[in-house]
Amino acid sequence: MSANNTQLKKEYLVVAQNASGRNLNVPVYTFSGSKPGPTVYIQSSIHGAEVQGNVVIYHLIKELKNTDIRGKIILVPNCNPVGTNIKSGEYTLGRFDPVNGTNWNRGYFYDQAAVEQFAKTVTPEEPVDVIKHRFRAHLLASIGKKLAEPWGLGLAQQLNLKLQQLAVNADFVLDLHNGPVSTRHIYIPEYAKDSALLFNIPHNIFIPNVFAGALDEATFCPWWTLQDSVRQNLGRNIQCNVEAFTLEMGSQEVINFGEGSVDAHSILSYLNGKGVLVNSDFTPAEMTRLGVYLQDYKTLYSDFGGMVEYIAKPGQKVQKGEPLAQILDIDELDNSQGSRMLHAPCDLIPMLNFPSASVLSGTQLFKCFTNYFEL
Amino acid sequence: MSANNTQLKKEYLVVAQNASGRNLNVPVYTFSGSKPGPTVYIQSSIHGAEVQGNVVIYHLIKELKNTDIRGKIILVPNCNPVGTNIKSGEYTLGRFDPVNGTNWNRGYFYDQAAVEQFAKTVTPEEPVDVIKHRFRAHLLASIGKKLAEPWGLGLAQQLNLKLQQLAVNADFVLDLHNGPVSTRHIYIPEYAKDSALLFNIPHNIFIPNVFAGALDEATFCPWWTLQDSVRQNLGRNIQCNVEAFTLEMGSQEVINFGEGSVDAHSILSYLNGKGVLVNSDFTPAEMTRLGVYLQDYKTLYSDFGGMVEYIAKPGQKVQKGEPLAQILDIDELDNSQGSRMLHAPCDLIPMLNFPSASVLSGTQLFKCFTNYFEL
Amino acid sequence: MSANNTQLKKEYLVVAQNASGRNLNVPVYTFSGSKPGPTVYIQSSIHGAEVQGNVVIYHLIKELKNTDIRGKIILVPNCNPVGTNIKSGEYTLGRFDPVNGTNWNRGYFYDQAAVEQFAKTVTPEEPVDVIKHRFRAHLLASIGKKLAEPWGLGLAQQLNLKLQQLAVNADFVLDLHNGPVSTRHIYIPEYAKDSALLFNIPHNIFIPNVFAGALDEATFCPWWTLQDSVRQNLGRNIQCNVEAFTLEMGSQEVINFGEGSVDAHSILSYLNGKGVLVNSDFTPAEMTRLGVYLQDYKTLYSDFGGMVEYIAKPGQKVQKGEPLAQILDIDELDNSQGSRMLHAPCDLIPMLNFPSASVLSGTQLFKCFTNYFEL
Amino acid sequence: MSANNTQLKKEYLVVAQNASGRNLNVPVYTFSGSKPGPTVYIQSSIHGAEVQGNVVIYHLIKELKNTDIRGKIILVPNCNPVGTNIKSGEYTLGRFDPVNGTNWNRGYFYDQAAVEQFAKTVTPEEPVDVIKHRFRAHLLASIGKKLAEPWGLGLAQQLNLKLQQLAVNADFVLDLHNGPVSTRHIYIPEYAKDSALLFNIPHNIFIPNVFAGALDEATFCPWWTLQDSVRQNLGRNIQCNVEAFTLEMGSQEVINFGEGSVDAHSILSYLNGKGVLVNSDFTPAEMTRLGVYLQDYKTLYSDFGGMVEYIAKPGQKVQKGEPLAQILDIDELDNSQGSRMLHAPCDLIPMLNFPSASVLSGTQLFKCFTNYFEL
Repeated sequence: MSANNTQLKKEYLVVAQNASGRNLNVPVYTFSGSKPGPTVYIQSSIHGAEVQGNVVIYHLIKELKNTDIRGKIILVPNCNPVGTNIKSGEYTLGRFDPVNGTNWNRGYFYDQAAVEQFAKTVTPEEPVDVIKHRFRAHLLASIGKKLAEPWGLGLAQQLNLKLQQLAVNADFVLDLHNGPVSTRHIYIPEYAKDSALLFNIPHNIFIPNVFAGALDEATFCPWWTLQDSVRQNLGRNIQCNVEAFTLEMGSQEVINFGEGSVDAHSILSYLNGKGVLVNSDFTPAEMTRLGVYLQDYKTLYSDFGGMVEYIAKPGQKVQKGEPLAQILDIDELDNSQGSRMLHAPCDLIPMLNFPSASVLSGTQLFKCFTNYFEL
Repeated sequence: MSANNTQLKKEYLVVAQNASGRNLNVPVYTFSGSKPGPTVYIQSSIHGAEVQGNVVIYHLIKELKNTDIRGKIILVPNCNPVGTNIKSGEYTLGRFDPVNGTNWNRGYFYDQAAVEQFAKTVTPEEPVDVIKHRFRAHLLASIGKKLAEPWGLGLAQQLNLKLQQLAVNADFVLDLHNGPVSTRHIYIPEYAKDSALLFNIPHNIFIPNVFAGALDEATFCPWWTLQDSVRQNLGRNIQCNVEAFTLEMGSQEVINFGEGSVDAHSILSYLNGKGVLVNSDFTPAEMTRLGVYLQDYKTLYSDFGGMVEYIAKPGQKVQKGEPLAQILDIDELDNSQGSRMLHAPCDLIPMLNFPSASVLSGTQLFKCFTNYFEL
Repeated sequence: MSANNTQLKKEYLVVAQNASGRNLNVPVYTFSGSKPGPTVYIQSSIHGAEVQGNVVIYHLIKELKNTDIRGKIILVPNCNPVGTNIKSGEYTLGRFDPVNGTNWNRGYFYDQAAVEQFAKTVTPEEPVDVIKHRFRAHLLASIGKKLAEPWGLGLAQQLNLKLQQLAVNADFVLDLHNGPVSTRHIYIPEYAKDSALLFNIPHNIFIPNVFAGALDEATFCPWWTLQDSVRQNLGRNIQCNVEAFTLEMGSQEVINFGEGSVDAHSILSYLNGKGVLVNSDFTPAEMTRLGVYLQDYKTLYSDFGGMVEYIAKPGQKVQKGEPLAQILDIDELDNSQGSRMLHAPCDLIPMLNFPSASVLSGTQLFKCFTNYFEL
Repeated sequence: MSANNTQLKKEYLVVAQNASGRNLNVPVYTFSGSKPGPTVYIQSSIHGAEVQGNVVIYHLIKELKNTDIRGKIILVPNCNPVGTNIKSGEYTLGRFDPVNGTNWNRGYFYDQAAVEQFAKTVTPEEPVDVIKHRFRAHLLASIGKKLAEPWGLGLAQQLNLKLQQLAVNADFVLDLHNGPVSTRHIYIPEYAKDSALLFNIPHNIFIPNVFAGALDEATFCPWWTLQDSVRQNLGRNIQCNVEAFTLEMGSQEVINFGEGSVDAHSILSYLNGKGVLVNSDFTPAEMTRLGVYLQDYKTLYSDFGGMVEYIAKPGQKVQKGEPLAQILDIDELDNSQGSRMLHAPCDLIPMLNFPSASVLSGTQLFKCFTNYFEL
């Protein structure tokens, strides 16, 4: 419990059972403020190798123990106890279910048709608070029904839905990830573009109202679609003020306490901007923030197999034609083809690169900002 | 070359490059008949552990060397040289790309909107042959354009598209797979339901015009949609006679030459029924064939982790309430909870079960026919 | 608790901690008889995919709850909570630590020089009971010291030593394993050859006093060496009557309750023969038992890569020159090299074969009895 | 071919066959000087993820094309085509055979008894050249016999022996490796301690005449033992001048062309010091070189599972009691146990640390120099 009026509670949520028949649970830390306010949900490590978010939550808890808040903040570190614990060689095979390849971050729930159906029940006079309350109940019931499917569900989906049962009540949802070898960047729904200025993250990707299974999308798509549908149906603009983000906190496989403190301050600055903190002086840093639309966030795949030195570093501005990578061909070491350069096809900034020199054809070498702009 | 008028040619298709920088190729065996006729495309082992199809192709080639054919038969055994060669323990990790979890059988090309666009160019008088020829050229160009994407493509998609460049010219496409521990079954598009009677496969799953990325769907969805669109646009019924199937030839990780011969005869019976063979007496067997619609083909997931004996065997009729599996709980061996039965939730026939006793929660224990019927 | 005079107790032993920071424990079931007698230690699934032993222990506990015993029986099912829970594809990657390849069954403790040193402390008159008591204390202290190594120990070794702390007190140690695709067989130290007649296991491998890291060896090597050293030093023959076995209970990845009951009866017959059971009528079956010396237990490796049908079945007598396997070569399907036979190099009985058709060069295709004899 | 008198030849050596039935080969580059002299053998990437050596060989070849040499230099980059190509997640699972866990670097041949037997055939007068020639023939025959074993050999051993057939003729053998996250260091047999001054490697580990399966040991143990045995047998000191080293060229999974050039110069300085280069001015750098005996090269294992920040960096001098690592405990984030420090148990220099923050108990956190000294 904190020295202020905020209460801190620790509980455990069972999310799976392993082959030994043992329950696998995750810790759920909840801060409850003395004043009413929004609900915040923050989780980390849904991809098992992406561990920096756990340190960020460590620092968030330290800070929040000394901070008055409005509403509630739910923190779930290490939220995937299966993915965290699959080693293959020295690394963590944490991106997908090793049984079937299912991405641990693609099984959240969203039913667009049901949202559009719900939107039809909204009347011109219904207060936004009441709409939000009814809609949350609707979403929660839908997730519950899905989880109760009589023939059962796959492991990743079960895990995702159990976490989403916590997240669905939140106004602000932050899903903490890492890239392979990566600089810090964030996915922001286009309608919440202004929130980019509240975080201290230099690279911002603005994404449309499209669902591909991730938690941020599963959170904002329903509300975005609800607002759009109500506008279309009634010509009425409602603001539900629900936001959700995927934050990429640097490189996977690494934790860094120092950087984690900086990351936590960035999040606290956002939360303060949203009125979650009471009498807090966390404010956004003065810094250059760059943005890109999702269609300009490009993946560069190898069209060769071989060994690669990644020359362009994540976060570095590269001009068209400058070297991105140098490739070694072990069969041509006796001639001039022993190494060759791969050049940037256009002006770009790499956000991340593949974490191994050894690549097959069709490998994601870099993900890059192109046509980026200053915010 | 065969003793008859059929020509047999062996070529190699490069489908990927490995981290040593070496080309990975697959053998392509092509029979060309002296008479014109349809094109047949048969591949096996796109999932690396599903190897029985390779033996089936071995037997098909032996038979076809002594058979006159019309048209062309293209056979691509072991069509995934990456998936075939990833061992993890003694087994083959062949279902998905080990780098990112991408299913090797989900990256084929289909663009529904483009097909609907194409359908608008069909006139009331255009002969079906001409439509088919134009449509094939359209599909081939689309695949080629996709493969030439300037930022590149992922490995699985590259592999799929290179194979699809061969398959897109075929009238009859057979993709040979295996289940985990499995009885023989086949996926058949609903419009080609009658073809179930030409194969000697006891279990038939009828699937709708929905694309989920597999080769059979990527083959029949365009033609099905084209036919539907032309009917809608012009009120004209055209029959393109393109069929595509996924055949599940028993259990993965196993080859059996004796069963492979039986499997090959089943396929030759289909091809003979379609007029591909000349003066051949391969005819379908007299046998009971059961069918099910896809929505009644159910996956039973575990809601527990533990050790499982699979009691109900693939292909066996199970009544509601009869035992499917016996579960061991190693923490309760001193009491009556040490083992318990899992019962069938309705009348069903398991097609396959999970190949390991050890399961986490959310594991596909069985895939089952329910509401099945005799053909 | 049982209806007789035997007490049953369940405890948990922590053997490791996972990356989530959670303790991993294993259940330890202990039966204590009202009469004094030997100690028995039985564990299963040190290799995670070898699960049948868990069912055997299930049946042993059921039987022992209704049986009076002398001494103590310790049962540890599923004794490797790490290896049990590493999935890779649908199978369990349970043979070695996925981080570094360390076999989970090679880190038990044995220090031959220390045993020879200890042997020098034995006097001509020291009663065998006292020697045994002193030696057990010596072994236990050595293991404890090893575990307390200030720079720490590797995971597999820690796991092994924690289990060995239980096993070191036992007179009879049974380590329950499975082969890949396998018939039942057992490893027996040469000096305990007669015990082959107490189990109902058709295939018996007699092994010398050589330590390669496994639990059976770590158990019998010290006592064997002690007896030999005392004989050499003092010309005195002492009988310590400690025996240890590795039992291979059929194929991995499978549990079978019916066969588990038969396996349990075989073990109870051994225990009854050793005086552990009171008024029990478990007796060895009348059956043919075959034996082989370790140097005649041969591994046949592939000198090719390809796809294999394993024709000779585990347990089947094969004459020299008879077919063992049929090999498919997907690059030669257009000619007579498309398949070829692999023949037995001598008279043999396969005990096990590789569980996948797909093999690289240097794969263990079969392990075989050669020069075997009837017991 | 080079502009000088040195000839460069490229050949391919088949070392295995994969499950597709395809030969796997490695390139063998051989420089032959116009003048007689010693033979040098250099290989890289026997562990598939340790790829920097390939770049070093790239630079060596570039330099040697413009350098006169005495004798012969054999270079085998990427010498393990199996280990190079096993991906598991984005990383390369290259340390052990994924089928059975066998370390790719532990199957080389050495038979101490046979060497001692051979030593008995050496007479007091036999010239060293003749002894060396006879001994090489003996070793080569032994390896050939092993490879011809009628029941076959495991994959790793086959691979090792085929490479050793090339290395056994060499006077100087360099096996290029990488550590996980690592600074440059080298293993040097104690008798060749002076050669530490010829390389530009700051950290030197001196190892005894003990065989654990690696190529450097398999190379120097026979000659060391031969020299010792001849001294024992005849009181005669012979100098065979065969040296072998394992060089750890920084961190795995990474190639760096710039550092590779520096690494190549270090090796050329050694070769020049040994008289392999003609009129070359490669000389050892002025630098501090530290040494340690193998018994003082310590591995620090975790006695906990959790998430770790590695604070002490490879190559950095750490005093007893200074922090090595900071550990996060996700279950204790609400109290002071949320993180804790791990301190150095004595003065040390880490050579390498585990490359993932996520560790189970029993993980190799650091390998450290202790009791080190300046050379």
